[in-house]
Amino acid sequence: MSLVVMKFGGTSVADLSKIANAARKVQQEVENGHNVIVIVSAMSGKTNELVGWVSETSTFYDAREYDAVVSSGENVTAGLMALTLQEMGVAARSWQGWQVPLQTNSAHGAARILDIPCENLNSKFDQGMNVAVVAGFQGVSPEGRITTLGRGGSDTTAVAFAAAFKAQRCDIYTDVDGIYTTDPRIVSKARKMEKISYEEMLELASLGAKVLQTRSVELAMRYKVPLRVLSSFEDDISETAGTYVCDEEEIMEDNVVSGVAYSRDEAKITLVSVADRPGVAAAIFVPLAEAGVNVDMIVQNISEEGRTDMTFSCPTNEIARAQKALETAKGSGTINFHGLVVDDLVAKVSIVGVGMRSHAGIAAKMFEVLAKEGVNIRVITTSEIKVSVLIDRKYMELAVRALHDAFELEKAT
Amino acid sequence: MSLVVMKFGGTSVADLSKIANAARKVQQEVENGHNVIVIVSAMSGKTNELVGWVSETSTFYDAREYDAVVSSGENVTAGLMALTLQEMGVAARSWQGWQVPLQTNSAHGAARILDIPCENLNSKFDQGMNVAVVAGFQGVSPEGRITTLGRGGSDTTAVAFAAAFKAQRCDIYTDVDGIYTTDPRIVSKARKMEKISYEEMLELASLGAKVLQTRSVELAMRYKVPLRVLSSFEDDISETAGTYVCDEEEIMEDNVVSGVAYSRDEAKITLVSVADRPGVAAAIFVPLAEAGVNVDMIVQNISEEGRTDMTFSCPTNEIARAQKALETAKGSGTINFHGLVVDDLVAKVSIVGVGMRSHAGIAAKMFEVLAKEGVNIRVITTSEIKVSVLIDRKYMELAVRALHDAFELEKAT
Repeated sequence: MSLVVMKFGGTSVADLSKIANAARKVQQEVENGHNVIVIVSAMSGKTNELVGWVSETSTFYDAREYDAVVSSGENVTAGLMALTLQEMGVAARSWQGWQVPLQTNSAHGAARILDIPCENLNSKFDQGMNVAVVAGFQGVSPEGRITTLGRGGSDTTAVAFAAAFKAQRCDIYTDVDGIYTTDPRIVSKARKMEKISYEEMLELASLGAKVLQTRSVELAMRYKVPLRVLSSFEDDISETAGTYVCDEEEIMEDNVVSGVAYSRDEAKITLVSVADRPGVAAAIFVPLAEAGVNVDMIVQNISEEGRTDMTFSCPTNEIARAQKALETAKGSGTINFHGLVVDDLVAKVSIVGVGMRSHAGIAAKMFEVLAKEGVNIRVITTSEIKVSVLIDRKYMELAVRALHDAFELEKAT
Repeated sequence: MSLVVMKFGGTSVADLSKIANAARKVQQEVENGHNVIVIVSAMSGKTNELVGWVSETSTFYDAREYDAVVSSGENVTAGLMALTLQEMGVAARSWQGWQVPLQTNSAHGAARILDIPCENLNSKFDQGMNVAVVAGFQGVSPEGRITTLGRGGSDTTAVAFAAAFKAQRCDIYTDVDGIYTTDPRIVSKARKMEKISYEEMLELASLGAKVLQTRSVELAMRYKVPLRVLSSFEDDISETAGTYVCDEEEIMEDNVVSGVAYSRDEAKITLVSVADRPGVAAAIFVPLAEAGVNVDMIVQNISEEGRTDMTFSCPTNEIARAQKALETAKGSGTINFHGLVVDDLVAKVSIVGVGMRSHAGIAAKMFEVLAKEGVNIRVITTSEIKVSVLIDRKYMELAVRALHDAFELEKAT
């Protein structure tokens, strides 16, 4: 019997009526002849409440206890979803991570999945169970303690189950109906894509498109899991609904640029007049990494007379942490700079597309479009399939719209 | 190293500051040189919220899913308590039922404890852990599913751990500071007892004293676990605090009557003119039991000309259920009665004391005291160590006070 994995996030199971709504979609897949593994998140708000209690209790908490506490929200949803399905006449039961068992390493709070044995669930499927509802985001360590997978853990759980059980597809139900060429709140002409490649989705995810978590896309790419993003609040769950994330080869349409992404709350920090010597980058960025600062773009100016300027970007809410780490490093003598200039009014705008690999001049066209709109570019980074620029935040929407227009993303090819 | 078990109920862990308050008492026992097993309930209100969700989802729910959902509240408290203790510098960790594992049968919702292996916790105690915080109320079935122990399950968990680990004592922390000769809200002279026997506590618990759950007292009696009831909101946790529940032989004081209990919301139901034949009691009470009616006292009048009146008491909120069960049985012809008389304005008052075994005339004295106050007795039942009467509810407080006075319960002997 064919198997599909369906994942419902926190907003899709926020209360009993939303759980019932999600359950009806599961029932529909069962009626279509599938067995289903349903991965559920905690009801929205619940995990935050639990995290809040842990943080209030303890500043430097034991991550094992953190995991034991915060994993409980998913268990509640899993049981309620199983009950709802049973009430609809669907043969369902719930599974907590340790019952599967979803085996992880012991990196509590951000555990890696080691194995998902299929025997337990398959034996129940063989006995006539049609739906296994699995609490997402959690597993069990070799020591028998509960682990959580960290941010986006439920997406990752879903993809991992789809890979382990060789599911026909992995449907991620969320509050949007697919992946758009850009944010429709900024560009009304933004177009929902039918398909997007894993690589592009990865770039978009890491650039701030919040629909799928990077790690789950990586996993899907590695195991060739056909992913789909669709809305839990629309009735259509037929094969044409939502956006498929799949291998590049399966995509017929061939836009050079597939999407425009943005990240609003960026900061640009410049270390002025750093003594330029071998190892200086490490001396700066190791303490930042240790302080948990997510450094994104990095630019080093041309060195003059043994001194250079070093610029990097990070989220605005990490500015204080970054400053503290840099001042501490300066105080301990490991780095030497004259000043620290913080610009917390910048944003990042990116264009993404696998077509860039075979088309020259895409970056140049991007810069031209921005120049025509009078947008000054602060920092540039590029990869094989994306170009990102840091610009003044006030121009962000303008830039996104201009790029969407210039690359004609509203047109499907 | 000596071991004590400490149990904190829902009101004692209702929020983070109450959890901290409970944790300080645990810390104190550790400083006194004990290892501690702490059994925690869910934060007050949480279990009701979860039960509400389950009931709303499904009328005839799968008890296995019910258990998976409602057990999550205790897991949260266990983790938070362990974190709080760690924050205070106490070597603590949390355990969920399946991690111990607390093994139960598969009677979901009201599971019986089969075994508590000590190896896992003891090996951690040997490695320097001082406190094991265990989620109460839950275990794991032979099928590897989560079970709950039903009402008072956390008290039962605490006593079972104390028995399995041969703990020095089992302290039940609650919102009262001990067991009183009667309810101090009714009799201001009510006296906190230093000690009470298991047998008396059992009677008091089943008669409506809500401090300890019957099942946990039974278990304590069977395994000779020294139980103590004390307040989590008072500072004194020294050996003289609270009330000990222990073997009769350990009690020096020798009141003939130890306490007066009452149960306010009782109803008296009389089946008028029942055809009296062998098996008629079974024909009446089996359908009531099947309908979940908690029948308490039963009286059968002297039979006249092949017909009799049958009277029983039950909680007022079960009247409708009882009536329906009896009318259904009448309709199906298994019983035959002329009428059903319901009196929902009665209350039960009881006196309890192991001294009754060796003292005659205690029941007579009770009836005399009530007669002197003009209180009419509707139904009487007796056991070896208690006498209960059903009286008009309006006389309940008067009766309790008069009996407390007459047996001089304010005086310790």
